Amino acid sequence: MKYLQKLKEELRPIYCLRAVSELLSWDQETYMPIGAASARAEQAAAVSKISHNLFCNPAMGELIGNAKAEIEDSQSEDAHLVRLAALEYERESKVPAELVSKLSEACSKAQTAWVEARAKGKFSLMQNELADVVSYTRECAEFYGYKDHIYNAMLEYYEPGTAVAQLDKVFAELRPHLVTLAAQIKEAQTQPHGLWKQKYPIKQQRIFANLISSSMGYSWEHGRTDDVVHPFCCSFSTRDVRITNTYKEYEPTRSLFTALHETGHALYEQGSPERWQHTPLEGGTSMGWHESQSRLWENIVGRSLPFWEYFYPRYKELFSEQLETCDLMQFYRAINEVKPSFIRTEADEVTYNLHVMLRYELEKALLDGSLQVTDIPEAWNESMKSYLGIIPAHDGEGCAQDVHWPMGLIGYFPSYALGNIRSAQVWETLRRDLPDIDKELRRGNLLLIRDWMADHVYCWGRRLLPNELQMQVVGAELNALPFVRYLETKYTDIYKL
Amino acid sequence: MKYLQKLKEELRPIYCLRAVSELLSWDQETYMPIGAASARAEQAAAVSKISHNLFCNPAMGELIGNAKAEIEDSQSEDAHLVRLAALEYERESKVPAELVSKLSEACSKAQTAWVEARAKGKFSLMQNELADVVSYTRECAEFYGYKDHIYNAMLEYYEPGTAVAQLDKVFAELRPHLVTLAAQIKEAQTQPHGLWKQKYPIKQQRIFANLISSSMGYSWEHGRTDDVVHPFCCSFSTRDVRITNTYKEYEPTRSLFTALHETGHALYEQGSPERWQHTPLEGGTSMGWHESQSRLWENIVGRSLPFWEYFYPRYKELFSEQLETCDLMQFYRAINEVKPSFIRTEADEVTYNLHVMLRYELEKALLDGSLQVTDIPEAWNESMKSYLGIIPAHDGEGCAQDVHWPMGLIGYFPSYALGNIRSAQVWETLRRDLPDIDKELRRGNLLLIRDWMADHVYCWGRRLLPNELQMQVVGAELNALPFVRYLETKYTDIYKL
Repeated sequence: MKYLQKLKEELRPIYCLRAVSELLSWDQETYMPIGAASARAEQAAAVSKISHNLFCNPAMGELIGNAKAEIEDSQSEDAHLVRLAALEYERESKVPAELVSKLSEACSKAQTAWVEARAKGKFSLMQNELADVVSYTRECAEFYGYKDHIYNAMLEYYEPGTAVAQLDKVFAELRPHLVTLAAQIKEAQTQPHGLWKQKYPIKQQRIFANLISSSMGYSWEHGRTDDVVHPFCCSFSTRDVRITNTYKEYEPTRSLFTALHETGHALYEQGSPERWQHTPLEGGTSMGWHESQSRLWENIVGRSLPFWEYFYPRYKELFSEQLETCDLMQFYRAINEVKPSFIRTEADEVTYNLHVMLRYELEKALLDGSLQVTDIPEAWNESMKSYLGIIPAHDGEGCAQDVHWPMGLIGYFPSYALGNIRSAQVWETLRRDLPDIDKELRRGNLLLIRDWMADHVYCWGRRLLPNELQMQVVGAELNALPFVRYLETKYTDIYKL
Repeated sequence: MKYLQKLKEELRPIYCLRAVSELLSWDQETYMPIGAASARAEQAAAVSKISHNLFCNPAMGELIGNAKAEIEDSQSEDAHLVRLAALEYERESKVPAELVSKLSEACSKAQTAWVEARAKGKFSLMQNELADVVSYTRECAEFYGYKDHIYNAMLEYYEPGTAVAQLDKVFAELRPHLVTLAAQIKEAQTQPHGLWKQKYPIKQQRIFANLISSSMGYSWEHGRTDDVVHPFCCSFSTRDVRITNTYKEYEPTRSLFTALHETGHALYEQGSPERWQHTPLEGGTSMGWHESQSRLWENIVGRSLPFWEYFYPRYKELFSEQLETCDLMQFYRAINEVKPSFIRTEADEVTYNLHVMLRYELEKALLDGSLQVTDIPEAWNESMKSYLGIIPAHDGEGCAQDVHWPMGLIGYFPSYALGNIRSAQVWETLRRDLPDIDKELRRGNLLLIRDWMADHVYCWGRRLLPNELQMQVVGAELNALPFVRYLETKYTDIYKL
């Protein structure tokens, strides 16, 4: 096993550099002084390039080949490690370094343009820059190669093994249910009262957010939380997984559900076996799996009645004045209000996936050339009207709201919907194993869920590919029906449909 | 100039990686979760090794040689850039990579042992580990090569151009003055009153520390301050220079003088010309020069009467209760109390250099083999008695107090004394240029000093070697007399000698 050994040794510093790249962006979002931006950009680019060069070179390709030849048991950990390295090598070595640089530069310019476009609500201010990003992404996709649809080249990166055909089918199944449910809710007699007109001091919000993370089993010894503008979770190793949050005095649910969401991501990373540290096996297997974890905690658990039966008295202790006249059911309904809205990140459980599908359709069309960047605003607004029945007043709450496209993350959006769909499948499985879960939730026992995930999901790290993990955990392919059942049951009850 | 151009291009990512190494340690000291230590150690080691390998290879050596050959004006910026690269290359490429790893591993073990040894006050708990560090350091020194004394091999790293012969001479000149002055002060009739028996809330200490940094001209747009156990200043580029501090409720002077000291370092880094970012010319030219800046601000400025004539009323506003009965002169005497003590970092201006000389003598003896590691405690205590007239009760306040040796920083200590000596020479020069400086200090105008340093010191970055900068700024070689004059004048007045 001498090549395997050598491969492992050569991969470790590369994975260390990737962790360092994460630290550079964490620092940039949290503590970096504002005047350091351009120096930091050069440092981050240098680390990426060095890490890319260490990985993408013929000697590494040969080493991976030789290590592969040494593998005897194709289901062993080592086999899976080599498989991941080979998959990535094949993909990364296909694209000329020059194109990677061009794309990266185009993204950098597009992000700058996006900040202005969003602020001014004018997509036209970013359209030329975004057109470059799309054009270089299409070139990359051609180098990666694909079957059936160019979009598959990008999907393969975020959700290996998932293709347009499958997504189209799943989304087509899901869409009418969501549209119908949203329409029924709109017409329902029982509507929740708005609760958030008072001031919820940030100090207390912080206490509750951290209580939630702790109760979920987040290890503060191997993590921390910091304030940022756009919250995220990042991992520098299983031993250092940091969450972030944002606090708004008049929007207390923001920090609350952010804590649930980001801690959901973090538990997956902290749960990755330590022996895989700084190897390809460390971490979560795909963004769609990651989102299944964060969305499960945020919505299925964090917006459920049993959860709040335990936590609402604690929440009310912190905000006794603000919630004086609000009982549990009123609160439960308020945090589950369904209402078509313009901003994806603020959307409720029912309409959220419609936002994603809209973006998915546009992305596909951009890549296959059937939609031009200049035509995005019109297409966006038309889809908003047909999916949600509303039309944004300006592009800031429309097609210029997300940073994903200017960042070059084309093909990423489906992960959010996959996460939602998968979270319901995982939850049904968990309920079969733990039929008393509602009772446990009413006692505030969140660790039971964390432990189940640890045994069934986290323990696999990236060893199983997304579809393999799906079969391993759920025992069935991706299927929207459990999610539909979950929504219909829950919202029929809340809105007395 | 094609080789020069290529050299510059190849050095940039290496300097970026060095900045990243700094960020890894800053994060480790400030925000890293405690459980991440071993993962972080691997990441830091990987970055160091990659950066070392990118620099120390025959192709780089050849490139430096070719670039050197292209240089026409030996006094140009480019010539100095190549000179620095060549100096470092020559040094670094002499030591086998295997020895570097061994030393680094030994240091890592010695630091762990040191923590316990210091806490338990027993040097014996770290002596084996330290013996390895000393032994590998001696091996390194042999590879580096030296004239006259093996210690010169190490000095050349921290203070290029300075040798044992010069240090011995300067220290020999300085020592009797310090010993005599300390003895006179001990016998003086006028002794200051202790002031620090009350609680000084940390919130106010923080306000004052930041006021000091701001008044000195520290750019918060290109820096920040954070809390740590052992304060330091670190620089990731001229645009990102971070200071740190530590706050103790019953020791308000700690954070105060730390702010002056670390901001002194930071101004030097922030003042380095931006065009040299990520090149060998960026930063401060040596630790001895760096300490001249930090010690000048901390002591010559920050413990001076004119400084406090302006700042004491502001300080008293923050601590009106604690300082109610304390007038300016009483305060001024209290912050200038001279008293032999065990801990170097807490020593006053008069005795500080004796602590350094003691360490310098032991280091020399350790390297030339005339002292064994096991004999350090005895030698230490003997020197303490002869230099300061006191003997530590245990090694925690004796030979196990500093982290430098376990960290492998043998040859570093003289930088502190060089800094003190040089600060007085620089100050005499500055006073000749700015004869009204005391008047300006009384008005709180610290920017005048910062601007003078910017024009005379910072602007040179690392372009001039330490001795060249000494001639450029001071116009005279290193000389202890200005420092002696400074001390004698000041303390004769304070203690009415």
